[in-house]
Amino acid sequence: MNSFDRSAAGIAQVFRGTFVHSTQQTALEILEDALLGVDTEGKIAFIGKGEELDKLLKSTNFNPSEVIQLSQHEFFMPGMVDTHIHASQYSYAGTALDMPLLQWLNTYTFPVESQFKDLDFANRVYSKVVKRTLRNGTTTACYFATIHTDASLLLGKIANDFGQRALVGKVCMDRNNFVKHYKETMQESQDETCRYVSNLKNYPLVKPVVTPRFAPSCTGALLGQLGAIAKNNNLHIQSHVSENTEEVKLVKELFPDSESYTDVYYKHNLLTDKTVMAHGCHLSDEELALFRETGASLSHCPNSNISLCSGVLNVRNVLKQKVKLGLGTDVAGGYSASMLDAVRKALDSSKILTIQDPEHDTLTFEEGQFGSHNNDHTVLCWLCLNKICLLGLINRK
Amino acid sequence: MNSFDRSAAGIAQVFRGTFVHSTQQTALEILEDALLGVDTEGKIAFIGKGEELDKLLKSTNFNPSEVIQLSQHEFFMPGMVDTHIHASQYSYAGTALDMPLLQWLNTYTFPVESQFKDLDFANRVYSKVVKRTLRNGTTTACYFATIHTDASLLLGKIANDFGQRALVGKVCMDRNNFVKHYKETMQESQDETCRYVSNLKNYPLVKPVVTPRFAPSCTGALLGQLGAIAKNNNLHIQSHVSENTEEVKLVKELFPDSESYTDVYYKHNLLTDKTVMAHGCHLSDEELALFRETGASLSHCPNSNISLCSGVLNVRNVLKQKVKLGLGTDVAGGYSASMLDAVRKALDSSKILTIQDPEHDTLTFEEGQFGSHNNDHTVLCWLCLNKICLLGLINRK
Ligand SMILES: [Zn+2]
Ligand SMILES: [Zn+2]
Repeated sequence: MNSFDRSAAGIAQVFRGTFVHSTQQTALEILEDALLGVDTEGKIAFIGKGEELDKLLKSTNFNPSEVIQLSQHEFFMPGMVDTHIHASQYSYAGTALDMPLLQWLNTYTFPVESQFKDLDFANRVYSKVVKRTLRNGTTTACYFATIHTDASLLLGKIANDFGQRALVGKVCMDRNNFVKHYKETMQESQDETCRYVSNLKNYPLVKPVVTPRFAPSCTGALLGQLGAIAKNNNLHIQSHVSENTEEVKLVKELFPDSESYTDVYYKHNLLTDKTVMAHGCHLSDEELALFRETGASLSHCPNSNISLCSGVLNVRNVLKQKVKLGLGTDVAGGYSASMLDAVRKALDSSKILTIQDPEHDTLTFEEGQFGSHNNDHTVLCWLCLNKICLLGLINRK
Repeated sequence: MNSFDRSAAGIAQVFRGTFVHSTQQTALEILEDALLGVDTEGKIAFIGKGEELDKLLKSTNFNPSEVIQLSQHEFFMPGMVDTHIHASQYSYAGTALDMPLLQWLNTYTFPVESQFKDLDFANRVYSKVVKRTLRNGTTTACYFATIHTDASLLLGKIANDFGQRALVGKVCMDRNNFVKHYKETMQESQDETCRYVSNLKNYPLVKPVVTPRFAPSCTGALLGQLGAIAKNNNLHIQSHVSENTEEVKLVKELFPDSESYTDVYYKHNLLTDKTVMAHGCHLSDEELALFRETGASLSHCPNSNISLCSGVLNVRNVLKQKVKLGLGTDVAGGYSASMLDAVRKALDSSKILTIQDPEHDTLTFEEGQFGSHNNDHTVLCWLCLNKICLLGLINRK
């Protein structure tokens, strides 16, 4: 371990027991009787074998009797990364999944989101969602907030204060045909995004992410401005793409000059290697090629896709097309804030595709749990020891 | 309440708070500030409104200060009925759902089931499954045990001792081409079933159920004998039907004289109004008509059907065909022993059908939770206040 020397100075905790993680060679590796040392800054100082205990502690002041031994049925694993979750929708998770996407947005989502201009309300809901996701093992989350800059900054502060790593997005939308007052002008959206980005700098665990809600609620002009802001400031980008067929049709009508839904984002510089797009259930292979070529990623949200009857993402094909992929809960389109639920639903979805076509190459148990491991260790890699902390105990930087 | 006079003599407990249940008029009824009185025999003595407290307790010795008030987020609901669960498969629930049904049976199921001739082993596993299902709110279960009579009797004793209502079946099979030693002769199966039925009489909460494993593992001769035993003793019957397409094909080969898989059971007097058949994913409308005409029921096991890639039951069509329907976990084909998981997976399965065909009439939230209510109050009605106990607190007889 080349980090050993650096940390030898001060070991704060040592754990001994079973560790489960994912490496570049294998989707699932189980280390039995392993050791993990944490330094006084909360970083991993060493990982070793149980039998190496004396050797590893030799040049430290750490007392071997203080090693914390996991019990037979306990194990450590990397914290989970929720690559797509609407913090502002948490208050009504689990209700009213009885209508398709566009109708649901207009009936439930927009009216509730408009309440987040009230910072007390925002504080209550955002504290709950951060606490709940941490309790569920989500140590990193890509959040959608609302259009309200100050409430979105508050979400960043709350995540940082509770010790959750997060990409937090102030939502941008200058088009809303249904809940008329819940939108911005293009100028407001642009100005507020800039104010948001510069004010979020105070929270070391949190980064801003440029967040057009999705193409149907943004004009092309706004999408272009947001693409420019992301490019000029080297920022992450998140949005939704090709969630259900009705929405795909709507995008075709709204953006007649674009070849596809994906092309709308591509044309406006919103597909980069720092982009996470949720869903993608109905993407063509040509669109997946655009993702691969730009290095943009997909967030698979199977609970949401089933609950809203949106579609079933063919994960095997996405992997075959070498597109980066993470898992998300999409609360409240998905009713569960737990990434373990997302893992189970990802396997269910793959099995559904096998029921429809016995030739389909079902995801394995290991793939479902630990995903495919990306060499570049982006935050999108949903369980990756090199990037994220172990069950929230260790904030690795 | 006509049961009031009977129980007025001795009220043991009174609960006040929210009660959720299902009636013949509505799939979901929520009673707020309701009262429920339990008599000294553990039976429901009365149900009333909170404001009627004084009136209801007037002719009793019950002290109003001893009423147990539920907190704001607590509620009572009827206990859940798992209409299909393999007690003997509990030890490996959650593992190895990476192969289709017939392969899975031969690789995992048969080798493990054969170990239940060891009564110590049976005692350990069966105690665990009864405790776990009770903890999950399953107050009534339809169990498959194994071919071993004494171990199956032990399962009946364990369920009875823990206070769980159960139909327990000693499995019958005189055909097994894969794990050669795990089967009986026809004569053994018949004799042991009779011995089993007469010995299970000592457990008041438990009833025997005639249990041919499924048509492919029984000769026609054995099926005929089992049909006769059920008829002569007026017994319940359980088995599997039309779980996956490969199995349907196999049954067609093994029983060339039958018109369909369902017809095999029908011909052998195994379809009665006391029959529960698991799965039925691939039944034709003609087969469903046989179920309706005989009064036989289906147990929908959505977790298992997805996990083993067996198929997706069209519940809406089953209801349209007026076939009685319950929910089951099918542990270990299903990985969860919780009926709440079965409820969620039933809704998921219905939504999957809507994704495939937007004209499909998705099950509602209420239907998914509380099922369709059968007028005849069979044990199959999976959440029915008139038949089953409230969260295991009350053993209603
Ligand atoms: Zn979303
Ligand atoms: Zn079964």
